[in-house]
Amino acid sequence: MQALWQDKKDREVGMKKIPVIIDCDPGHDDMVALVLALGNSRLDVKAVTNVAGNKVMEKVVRNTLNILNYCGVKREVAAGARRPLVREYLRTDTEGAHGISGLDGFDFPEENPLRCSDRTAIEVMAEVLRTSEEKVTLIATGPLTNLGLLIRAFPELCREKVERISLMGGTCHYILTKPFMEFNVFMDAEASKIVFGSGLPITMFGYDVTYNTLLELDFLKKLEKVGNRTGHMVSSLLQAFYQLHNKAWMEVEGCPVHDACAVAGVIDPSIVTESERMYVEIPTEPGPLSGATICDYAHRSGKPANVEVVFKMDRDRFQDMILDSVRALA
Amino acid sequence: MQALWQDKKDREVGMKKIPVIIDCDPGHDDMVALVLALGNSRLDVKAVTNVAGNKVMEKVVRNTLNILNYCGVKREVAAGARRPLVREYLRTDTEGAHGISGLDGFDFPEENPLRCSDRTAIEVMAEVLRTSEEKVTLIATGPLTNLGLLIRAFPELCREKVERISLMGGTCHYILTKPFMEFNVFMDAEASKIVFGSGLPITMFGYDVTYNTLLELDFLKKLEKVGNRTGHMVSSLLQAFYQLHNKAWMEVEGCPVHDACAVAGVIDPSIVTESERMYVEIPTEPGPLSGATICDYAHRSGKPANVEVVFKMDRDRFQDMILDSVRALA
Amino acid sequence: MQALWQDKKDREVGMKKIPVIIDCDPGHDDMVALVLALGNSRLDVKAVTNVAGNKVMEKVVRNTLNILNYCGVKREVAAGARRPLVREYLRTDTEGAHGISGLDGFDFPEENPLRCSDRTAIEVMAEVLRTSEEKVTLIATGPLTNLGLLIRAFPELCREKVERISLMGGTCHYILTKPFMEFNVFMDAEASKIVFGSGLPITMFGYDVTYNTLLELDFLKKLEKVGNRTGHMVSSLLQAFYQLHNKAWMEVEGCPVHDACAVAGVIDPSIVTESERMYVEIPTEPGPLSGATICDYAHRSGKPANVEVVFKMDRDRFQDMILDSVRALA
Amino acid sequence: MQALWQDKKDREVGMKKIPVIIDCDPGHDDMVALVLALGNSRLDVKAVTNVAGNKVMEKVVRNTLNILNYCGVKREVAAGARRPLVREYLRTDTEGAHGISGLDGFDFPEENPLRCSDRTAIEVMAEVLRTSEEKVTLIATGPLTNLGLLIRAFPELCREKVERISLMGGTCHYILTKPFMEFNVFMDAEASKIVFGSGLPITMFGYDVTYNTLLELDFLKKLEKVGNRTGHMVSSLLQAFYQLHNKAWMEVEGCPVHDACAVAGVIDPSIVTESERMYVEIPTEPGPLSGATICDYAHRSGKPANVEVVFKMDRDRFQDMILDSVRALA
Repeated sequence: MQALWQDKKDREVGMKKIPVIIDCDPGHDDMVALVLALGNSRLDVKAVTNVAGNKVMEKVVRNTLNILNYCGVKREVAAGARRPLVREYLRTDTEGAHGISGLDGFDFPEENPLRCSDRTAIEVMAEVLRTSEEKVTLIATGPLTNLGLLIRAFPELCREKVERISLMGGTCHYILTKPFMEFNVFMDAEASKIVFGSGLPITMFGYDVTYNTLLELDFLKKLEKVGNRTGHMVSSLLQAFYQLHNKAWMEVEGCPVHDACAVAGVIDPSIVTESERMYVEIPTEPGPLSGATICDYAHRSGKPANVEVVFKMDRDRFQDMILDSVRALA
Repeated sequence: MQALWQDKKDREVGMKKIPVIIDCDPGHDDMVALVLALGNSRLDVKAVTNVAGNKVMEKVVRNTLNILNYCGVKREVAAGARRPLVREYLRTDTEGAHGISGLDGFDFPEENPLRCSDRTAIEVMAEVLRTSEEKVTLIATGPLTNLGLLIRAFPELCREKVERISLMGGTCHYILTKPFMEFNVFMDAEASKIVFGSGLPITMFGYDVTYNTLLELDFLKKLEKVGNRTGHMVSSLLQAFYQLHNKAWMEVEGCPVHDACAVAGVIDPSIVTESERMYVEIPTEPGPLSGATICDYAHRSGKPANVEVVFKMDRDRFQDMILDSVRALA
Repeated sequence: MQALWQDKKDREVGMKKIPVIIDCDPGHDDMVALVLALGNSRLDVKAVTNVAGNKVMEKVVRNTLNILNYCGVKREVAAGARRPLVREYLRTDTEGAHGISGLDGFDFPEENPLRCSDRTAIEVMAEVLRTSEEKVTLIATGPLTNLGLLIRAFPELCREKVERISLMGGTCHYILTKPFMEFNVFMDAEASKIVFGSGLPITMFGYDVTYNTLLELDFLKKLEKVGNRTGHMVSSLLQAFYQLHNKAWMEVEGCPVHDACAVAGVIDPSIVTESERMYVEIPTEPGPLSGATICDYAHRSGKPANVEVVFKMDRDRFQDMILDSVRALA
Repeated sequence: MQALWQDKKDREVGMKKIPVIIDCDPGHDDMVALVLALGNSRLDVKAVTNVAGNKVMEKVVRNTLNILNYCGVKREVAAGARRPLVREYLRTDTEGAHGISGLDGFDFPEENPLRCSDRTAIEVMAEVLRTSEEKVTLIATGPLTNLGLLIRAFPELCREKVERISLMGGTCHYILTKPFMEFNVFMDAEASKIVFGSGLPITMFGYDVTYNTLLELDFLKKLEKVGNRTGHMVSSLLQAFYQLHNKAWMEVEGCPVHDACAVAGVIDPSIVTESERMYVEIPTEPGPLSGATICDYAHRSGKPANVEVVFKMDRDRFQDMILDSVRALA
C-alpha cells in the first residue's frame, strides 16, 4: 500500500485549478459527483458529457441539465454513446436503484433553459484536451463507452493531454453480484478493456471503497439544513436513493454515493487512506466473468500494474467536502 | 437475385456527382481503388481516411500520400485508428501480399509535398457528413475500425447522412483460409459487428466476387500502354502484387484487385451482375470463426437481410472503368 | 470426390456379417434406422445403446424397446448418457418433429416383455468391442455423448477395435437453421468434438445427403402393402413424421429419414454416389456456430481430412433396402 | 463457518473402515496422499486409479506402482483418461514442480512385480461402487477427467453410492497464478464443471488450505528418522519437491503437500478448523478465468452452495497423521 499520486502533492499548494471533464449517466450518485465537482474551488469542470448507462441517453441528458440548472451552474453538456460499443445495451427501464427517471425522488422545475450541445461527447472532449494548456483529468462515473471511443479515435491526443482517469467502477474483493463484477465496467466490457489497457494512469474507485464509504444517515439531515436549493435537492434525492438501493440490492447502513468518490479523489488525493497499484484485466469473452475487473491483488501475473485500486478513504473529510460544495452552489 | 440499388437508377442519368469518402489501408488493391475513384467523373471524393490494416498507420498514410501525389491529385488525407477497437493488432511487418512497405514494387519520389491532415479520420468524416447537402457513400477497403468508431460516436449523423457503405470484405461461399473468413472483417471483428449491425445499407464485395473478377494479365500491359505516370504506376504495382499474392496465398490466373470492386459498384451499380440480400452476422466470441461473415444464404435465420452480398460483376466493364480513370489522371 | 471405403470392397463379396452397435435416441428416423439394420442380413447388430437427445432417456429407451418388440427382435438395449457431457440438456418435452413421446403416430402394445439392460451403454459397447474378433462399426444416430465417453474412457480399445463411425449428423452446404448447424452434433458439441477429433474413421451423413434422399410419399404406401406388423408400424410412423416435420421445420416433398442413411451406408457403401473427404472442426466456444460442423470444403485449412462427408446417395436402392428389411421382420 | 460433516461424527467412534478410491497422478504430493491413505487404519483403499495430469499416463502409472511396491502394499491400479475430456492436454514433459519423471528425487528399484490392471479406471470405480455395501468416498488429487467420465457414464450409480468427493483443487482467495485458478481444476475444466455441477457432496482442499498447511522442514527429518523404507522414500522425495517447488513457483517456508490434505480430511474431518459451504462455478468458456473456481464467498449469487471450501486445518495433527501412516508401512 502506498500513498496515492505523491507526485501531485505540490499541486495541492499551488493556485491553479485542476481541469476536469465529467463523463456521467445520472443517476443519484452521479448527481452527488456533479455537485461535489461543480461546487469545489479546486476543480475546473470544463465540460459534462453523458453516456447511456443507468438510463437511456434522453433521460441522463435531462437529469444532467436539471441538476445543473437547479444548482445554478452552466457548462457545456454533450450527449455521447447511446449504447455500448459492441455488446447489447441491456438496461431496462424498470425501476432499479435509480427509479424510472434515473433520478427519482425530486421534482425538478419543468422549465429548464439549459440545452444539450450540438456537438457529441467525444468532439467536446477532444476540443477540451486540445485547447487546454495543462493535462486534463477525466472523471468517469458511467460505462466507459465515451472514453473508449476517445482513446481509439484520438490516441495521440489522449497520450499527450490526459492527466489521469479517475473512474467509479470495478471491484477487487467486494462482491455485490459476482466476484470482480461491477455495473459500469460490465455494462460496456469492451470499452472498459480499451480504457484499462490504454496505458493512461487510472484510479479505480470500485465497490471496495464505495461500500466502505457510506454517508451517515444523519449527514442527509445536515445537507438539508444547509438551507439552499442544492442542499434540499441533494438531501431529497439521497433519501430516495437510500431506499431504492436497499430495495434493489441489499440492506446497507448508510447511503452509498459511489460516483462521488471518484471526484473526491481528484479534489484531494490524500483523502484516499488505502490503495494499491496492481494489474487489472477485463475479460470480454462470454462467460460468468465477462466484464469483470480481474484484479491481481497478489501480484502474481507478472504483468505491470495498470491501475491504482482504492480500498479506503476518509469518510469524515468526504462528507465535509460534499457539504462545502453544496454550500458553494445555489 | 435482384438488381442492386434500383432506387438509384435515376441517379445514373443525373448530372450530380456522387459524394464519397474512401477509408483505406493501401495496399496494392486499395491503390487501384483510389485511382479508380479519383479518376472517375461520377464520383466526388470528399476525403481519404486511413486505418491500420495491411500495414501500420505510418505506412498506409505514406502510401496514400504517395499515390495521390504521383497521380497529381489533392485531397484531405486523415489518419484514423492505429489498431482494432478491442482485439490485438495482429499485423506483422513481414512481407505478405503487399511486401514490406505495403506497396512494394514501385519507387515513388522521395519528395512529396502532400501532408496528412491535423484532424483525425472520424473528425473529417463527421465534417464531410455534416456539411454535405446530399447523403454520402462510405467506401471502406480496410478493416472497419474507423467506421465502427464513427457509427458509435455519431449515431444520428450516420443515420441521416450516410447513403450506403460499400465495403470490400467478407465472403459467403469462397474459402481462402476458413469458411466465411476474410481479412478486413476478421482484423477488427468488433468494429465489423458494429458496422454490419448498424442498420445502414451495406453492399459487401467479398472474396466471392473479387476472386471472380481477376484482371486479365494482358490488361496490365494495356495500363502501361496508356503512357502516363498513373498507368505506369498502376501497371508496375499490379505486376508486383500478382506475384506477391500468388506467393503468399495461392496460384490464381489473373490479378485480384479486391478493393477496387467496392468502388466500381458505387460508380455504376449495374456493373454487378449477381448479388443477393441476406442476413450476415459477425461472431466476435473466441473460436475458429471469430471475425467471420456468417452468411445466411438459405434465408433460414428468420432475421431481416442487412447486407447486399455481391457474387459477380462484369469484368470487361470493370477493366474499362479502371482504364478510363487511369487516363484521366496525371 | 472419391469412392467411399474402397478398402472394404472385398467385404462385399464375403459371407461374414458386419458387426455393428447402434447408438440412437428414437425418434422416427432412428426407428427406420433400427428396422433397416435389424432386418438386413449383412449386418450383425451386437447391441442397441441409447442416448438422451430427441427426448429424455426414459422415452428413448421405451421407444427402442417398443420398436424391437413390435418387430420381433431381441437385442441388449442399454441406457447411456442422460444429458450432454458439458453443456446443458436443452431438449424440451414439447412436440417438435417427433411429438410428445418421441415416436408419436403409432400405438404400441402396453405390454412389452423386453427390458433395458442393467449395464450402461459404454459398458456394453466396451464389452462388444473387447469380445469381437473383428473390428466393429459404430452407427450413431443421436447426440454423440456415449461415443465421446467411450473414446475417452477406452482410448486404446477404440483405436484397436472400432472399424468406423457412421453417423447421422452435421451439414456442409445445406442450411436448416444456421450454416454448418445440425441438431445431433450441436446438442453435445463437446462430445462431437471428441468424436471428430478422435482419429477414428468417420463417415458423416448430414443434412446435405439426408435432405437429398427423401422417401417418396408413394413409398409409404408400399411399406403398408408389405402387409406385416413392421410395415404397418413403419408406414404409420412415417406418415406422422412427415406431417410433424413439415409443421416444425419447413415444407419438404418427401419424407426425411435422416438416421437411416447412416445405416444404409454401412450395409452397402456403394449406395453413396457422392462424397468427399475433408477437414471438419467442431467449435465449442460460445457463439452462433458453437456446435456446428465447420467443413473445409475448399481444402484450405492445411489440416488433414478427418471425415468422409456424404452428399448424395441412390434413393431407389435406399428405398429397396428399407423394403427388404421390413419384409424380413415380423 | 461451520463444523464439517457433522453427520459423520458418529462414524468416528465406529469400527468400520471408510471405503475410498484414490484417483491420482503422482506427483510428489500424490505420493504423500497415497502413503497417508494406505498406512491409515481408518481407511479402506479399494483401488487406486490414475489420470494424466502432472505427467502423461505412462509416467503416473509407473510412479504409482513404484510407490505401492516400495511401501509393500498391493492394490488394483487402473489407468484412466490419457488426456482431458475436451481441451488439449497441455502438460509438457519439462521439469516443473515434479521433475522429468513426475517423481524426481528418489531411485526406485528397477524391478517391480506390480502391474497395472487390464481394466480401465472407470470400470474399476464402477465395480467398487456397485459391490460396496456402504457408500464410497472418492479422493481426487489430479485433474477430474476420470470422475467426470464416471459421473456421466454412471449417473445413477454415482448418486446412490458416492459418499463424497474429497478433492485437492481450486482456490478461493489464494493466488498462485491468477485469481481462482488452480492446476488440477484448470487442466480439465470441462470435467471439473461436470464434477462441481454433479450435486454430489464435495469438499475442496484448494490452495487456500494447502499453502496454509506446509510441512515444517524439521518434519522431513522426523520422517527420515522413522527408519523404515517408507520414511526414507517420503523424506527424500519431499526434500526434492521442496526445492523443485521453490524453483518453479515461489519461495515458501515449509513443504507443500497439497494432495495429502484431501486424504487427511477424509480420515478425520475434525482436522479441518475452518471451512465454509458456498457456490463454486467453473467457467469453461475461453478467457483468462477459463478453468478457474469462481467462489461466491459473499453468498451473493443466490445459487445453492455446492462445495465445502476448506481454509484451514490443524498442521500438527496433519503431521502426526502422516508420521503414523509412514510407521505403519514397510
